[in-house]
Amino acid sequence: MTKAYLALESRFRRMNILADIGGMLHWDMATMMPDGAAESRSEQLATLDVMSNELIKDAALKDLLAEAEGENLSDWQRANLNEMKREWVHGNAVPGDLVEAISRASTACEVAWRTARAENDFAGLLPKLQTVLDLSIEAGTAKAEALGCSVYDALLDQYDPSMSCAKIDTLFADLEAFLPDFTASVIDRQKTEAPAHSPKGPFPIETQKAIGLELMKAVGFDFDHGRLDISHHPFCGGTADDVRLTTRYNEADFTSAIMGVLHETGHAMYELGLPADWRLQPVGKARGMSMHESQSLLVEMQASRSQEFLTYAAPLFKKAFNGEGAAWEAENLYRLYTRVEPGLIRVDADEVTYPSHVILRYRLERALIEGDMKLADLPAAWNDMMQSLLGITPPNDADGCLQDIHWPSGAWGYFPTYTMGAMAAAQLFAAARNAVPGLMDNLAQGDFAPLMIWLRANVHGKGSSATTDEILQAATGAPLQTKAFITHLQTRYGS
Amino acid sequence: MTKAYLALESRFRRMNILADIGGMLHWDMATMMPDGAAESRSEQLATLDVMSNELIKDAALKDLLAEAEGENLSDWQRANLNEMKREWVHGNAVPGDLVEAISRASTACEVAWRTARAENDFAGLLPKLQTVLDLSIEAGTAKAEALGCSVYDALLDQYDPSMSCAKIDTLFADLEAFLPDFTASVIDRQKTEAPAHSPKGPFPIETQKAIGLELMKAVGFDFDHGRLDISHHPFCGGTADDVRLTTRYNEADFTSAIMGVLHETGHAMYELGLPADWRLQPVGKARGMSMHESQSLLVEMQASRSQEFLTYAAPLFKKAFNGEGAAWEAENLYRLYTRVEPGLIRVDADEVTYPSHVILRYRLERALIEGDMKLADLPAAWNDMMQSLLGITPPNDADGCLQDIHWPSGAWGYFPTYTMGAMAAAQLFAAARNAVPGLMDNLAQGDFAPLMIWLRANVHGKGSSATTDEILQAATGAPLQTKAFITHLQTRYGS
Repeated sequence: MTKAYLALESRFRRMNILADIGGMLHWDMATMMPDGAAESRSEQLATLDVMSNELIKDAALKDLLAEAEGENLSDWQRANLNEMKREWVHGNAVPGDLVEAISRASTACEVAWRTARAENDFAGLLPKLQTVLDLSIEAGTAKAEALGCSVYDALLDQYDPSMSCAKIDTLFADLEAFLPDFTASVIDRQKTEAPAHSPKGPFPIETQKAIGLELMKAVGFDFDHGRLDISHHPFCGGTADDVRLTTRYNEADFTSAIMGVLHETGHAMYELGLPADWRLQPVGKARGMSMHESQSLLVEMQASRSQEFLTYAAPLFKKAFNGEGAAWEAENLYRLYTRVEPGLIRVDADEVTYPSHVILRYRLERALIEGDMKLADLPAAWNDMMQSLLGITPPNDADGCLQDIHWPSGAWGYFPTYTMGAMAAAQLFAAARNAVPGLMDNLAQGDFAPLMIWLRANVHGKGSSATTDEILQAATGAPLQTKAFITHLQTRYGS
Repeated sequence: MTKAYLALESRFRRMNILADIGGMLHWDMATMMPDGAAESRSEQLATLDVMSNELIKDAALKDLLAEAEGENLSDWQRANLNEMKREWVHGNAVPGDLVEAISRASTACEVAWRTARAENDFAGLLPKLQTVLDLSIEAGTAKAEALGCSVYDALLDQYDPSMSCAKIDTLFADLEAFLPDFTASVIDRQKTEAPAHSPKGPFPIETQKAIGLELMKAVGFDFDHGRLDISHHPFCGGTADDVRLTTRYNEADFTSAIMGVLHETGHAMYELGLPADWRLQPVGKARGMSMHESQSLLVEMQASRSQEFLTYAAPLFKKAFNGEGAAWEAENLYRLYTRVEPGLIRVDADEVTYPSHVILRYRLERALIEGDMKLADLPAAWNDMMQSLLGITPPNDADGCLQDIHWPSGAWGYFPTYTMGAMAAAQLFAAARNAVPGLMDNLAQGDFAPLMIWLRANVHGKGSSATTDEILQAATGAPLQTKAFITHLQTRYGS
């Protein structure tokens, strides 16, 4: 008998359909919606949230979960039940009025943040950010109690279940030991080499889009289940059955939009490859944000910025834009796409300096959440740590501690997933190269199929049936480590 | 005290938000969605329907409605309560399993209809269409009992509350007495006149779109609360706060797309002009399909096909397409836009022959619903009536009784609203011309503002606070009549 379990499937199915509907409305909001509809759209999204919250807080769920525990379930059903329980804990640990308070406070803080960043006014943002922080700690504390872990680990669990501060500390310590000297040596070496030349534009947006579509097709994107549009902040949204990618175009520089499309296509391939039999069930979802970021970085950083792939892409760019001269050669594009330079802004960082941006945010948000630092001291602490990690000091808070939307929007515990994603990407790509003979030759022909077949079998198709570490262990022979990432950096950037 | 009433407002607000969400998903399905997502989208829409159905069938509603009846309500609140009761009756008269059976049967029949029409196979469609008809009669019978009216009137009430067969019979009898001789005389006269010349294309789609947008602006469309896109079947969708219009373009003929945009803009102006204070409440919705069609036909047939407006539009077309010669003159475009010719297809019909298409469908669907005709006899009855009403006989069922999606999709009782809309449009436009001095001169300048101000005060802003006839009585001094429509046809098409 699996009566209780099947009743749960039906309930979670409805929650996930509501989430999918929200995904479509979010996409529309960022790409199609006229500004005047913003308030109505917020109401629609809030209503979906409220209805979904009613479903997860339904009193019957607790008993059904307990009952299903004793039923005779398949491995996938058992894994699905475990994910249901996790979602139940997150949905029930925090009382409804606190959820609402966080939603209101973070919406208000996001709005204030846009002004504060534009006006370099950390003091002006402070009271609202303090409210968001306090409420997030309150929610995190409730979840920590329910999960039996620390507050920071409870927040992290929202984005990458089974990860912990203990693991992150070990991984990041490795990186901190390696990166400073290595980065300095890469920069020194790059100074001695031929400079990279940017191809001269303008580059018509229609042409950029056509190339983006062609490369999405090369990666294996299924246009019967998704599309590419424009938004201010590129993202991969929609649903696993209808993946909506976005990018933004700059007529003066095609390289960023194209690489952005490839990055989002990596996310999309994960969604499109999730186990179809488990669509709309918790176990059928992507494993978490670290694994999600690993898929975008695998396609972007590991595969598409490789010398091999650029030998395929360079002539395509040259032909499409009628380019002439050395700037259009693969060799130059590779130098462009692998330039290393410490900068103030995380989203503009190269893959060598990016981890330092993340480590800084991880240390600071932990200190804030664990009460070891006052929010008022954040700007100074940020600037000190930028200097010690990257050797530069922001001239203002706008390009310092005000640059990211994450904290104002209440996403504490999210930042580490970027760098765990980069490490997982390197680890998975190394395993794929070992497992698939001729993988790099395929990429040099613009053929991602062998790589995607491997990823579908080893990552995408597993959904949330195992933890991040379990998936990595089975696919690569080890849980998340720094080794492959460091080797990748040494191979690509070392002398 | 208005406690029960306010509780009802909160419940109907949620239902209407779900309906708005469905509106956005429908728009996306027709304009943006990749084909592969069709099944998921159906699931999403079905889930919204089920959840909405759960809300209207909630056991608490009956008592709240009874309680609110005795509360001290404003006129608008009282009207809102009346609309809530009407929606409650429609939502509760039919048991859930019958609603589901109709939904399944009509979806299956729609799919079968596409093939049947393409293959001219009425016999193949018959069993599925019979099921839809039988289930629709079953639902109509249940609603008729709850509303205390005939089955056909109950079906009609879904699309135009307070209309009835008795009224329609009187109105259509007037038209039937007038139209045959009049139509013949118009056709004879047009034969003696200079023929209308179609401007020669191709007409680039981008230019057609630009003109469409310019004319939408002229009508007063608010682009902060809506947009224009492309779909196979043009429609006006989305929500009252975010109206999504669509059209389709033909490179060989710009006149139909432009007039289609103006038609949909008429629908849109109604939605955009609904009483903002009552958004998401039953009383804040458009009055019904007759009134809705009156607004599109008022903008298209009454205003935009007038000689006055075409003197404004003709130079605009000529300039945009670099046109040359007599075909681009207002006089010729007017002749093009007012050509009368009996044809087989309703959606291609001119405004003189259109009512005959509707009368035919009204008579046939009533006979089917009231058991006076067998479905198997439909094709012969259709062809006979086409011959008697329009003097032509379809060479096949594809261009006869298989041409419309309405019956396969279960929309019995809908057809009369097209012609009631045409009559209401003429009646309202005549009243507006009387009330607003210089209205036609304004249109000759491309200025719809005075017309729209009048419509907003007399129609749009009333939402569903009164019946169709009450709104017309207040705006024009009479309930729905044929007089203004006949006068309009005589003035425009008479000798």
